[in-house]
Amino acid sequence: MVNPGRSSGIEALIQLLAKVPGLGPRSARRAALHLIKRRESLMEPLARALTQTAENVKTCSVCQNIDVTDPCSICTDPKRDRSQICVVEEVGDLWAMERVVGFRGLYHVLGGTLSALDGIGPQDLHIGALVERARDPGVTEVILATNATVDGQTTAHYIADRLSDANVTISGLAHGVPMGGELDYLDEGTLSAALKARKPV
Amino acid sequence: MVNPGRSSGIEALIQLLAKVPGLGPRSARRAALHLIKRRESLMEPLARALTQTAENVKTCSVCQNIDVTDPCSICTDPKRDRSQICVVEEVGDLWAMERVVGFRGLYHVLGGTLSALDGIGPQDLHIGALVERARDPGVTEVILATNATVDGQTTAHYIADRLSDANVTISGLAHGVPMGGELDYLDEGTLSAALKARKPV
Repeated sequence: MVNPGRSSGIEALIQLLAKVPGLGPRSARRAALHLIKRRESLMEPLARALTQTAENVKTCSVCQNIDVTDPCSICTDPKRDRSQICVVEEVGDLWAMERVVGFRGLYHVLGGTLSALDGIGPQDLHIGALVERARDPGVTEVILATNATVDGQTTAHYIADRLSDANVTISGLAHGVPMGGELDYLDEGTLSAALKARKPV
Repeated sequence: MVNPGRSSGIEALIQLLAKVPGLGPRSARRAALHLIKRRESLMEPLARALTQTAENVKTCSVCQNIDVTDPCSICTDPKRDRSQICVVEEVGDLWAMERVVGFRGLYHVLGGTLSALDGIGPQDLHIGALVERARDPGVTEVILATNATVDGQTTAHYIADRLSDANVTISGLAHGVPMGGELDYLDEGTLSAALKARKPV
């Protein structure tokens, strides 16, 4: 919808902002006005950050992480434990794992999950490269940290199968009651998983 | 919070995106990943649109609208009715008025409302310039389209007072039941305003 009160440049900016996830047409207008009002403190730095990231960002050829170097800063970090590979679906999941203080191993980003419905098979994910990495004698454990969804768990089982003849321990994230979670509000799947995996106190 | 799995460039981009209204820290991460995945179709065009808008955008010296020219494209449009000035609080309100097909007059953006709580007085708004514009003999009507809030209506009353000796008709937007609105869900102020302003069918 073209608005006669706006110049085509501002209109184009609003159309692009509306494509950013989290923003719609209305919030894109608000965002554009906010940015125009904060030209030096926000709009210009954001334009520079976008330009620089677009120019510099690369996909790591080892683990498929996103970074400005290839291999990425995690794969090249000498302080990382190279015996553990944590397998995640997307880069966003890798970021979530990194926010958890404690994990100091390496990652492998699959780029999605197996999905019969969407026609995504093993050849569409970075599984072959993972099998290759797991053959390295230095690797002792592969942690399958795909989402606890049907597709995520199907993918984890498939990968566990593919890694069965590699000399590595294969583990998965524990399921159970989330911290702060109330039993009454939990789904039955989580509750029964938590009961099965009960531990002595 | 610095995330060791991300380069400082991506981190800076996320921090800036989180300052855009409508996005928070979590949605800024999602937005950054979405932009990185759509580098050519979205990230680079958005960077260019931001840069160009930051370079070119100006505030109209006549009506305080935002545009790439000064005076703005509305003030210089020969097809506009120069006898009507519609007074709004912010540029976003001007955009909203423009989406309403039909109004073809000029605007005046106040830059806010009077507010005793926030210490905003008449000298902080573009009221003097409006009084000046209303003295032009070509201007016959000033439409006060401030928001239907306490501050918006206080501001409208103050402006009506300031314009009392100018030779112009002063009007305000009608209050009433919004189109599609259900009486049961309306606040009492709106309903009683709609009743008072009832019209023969």
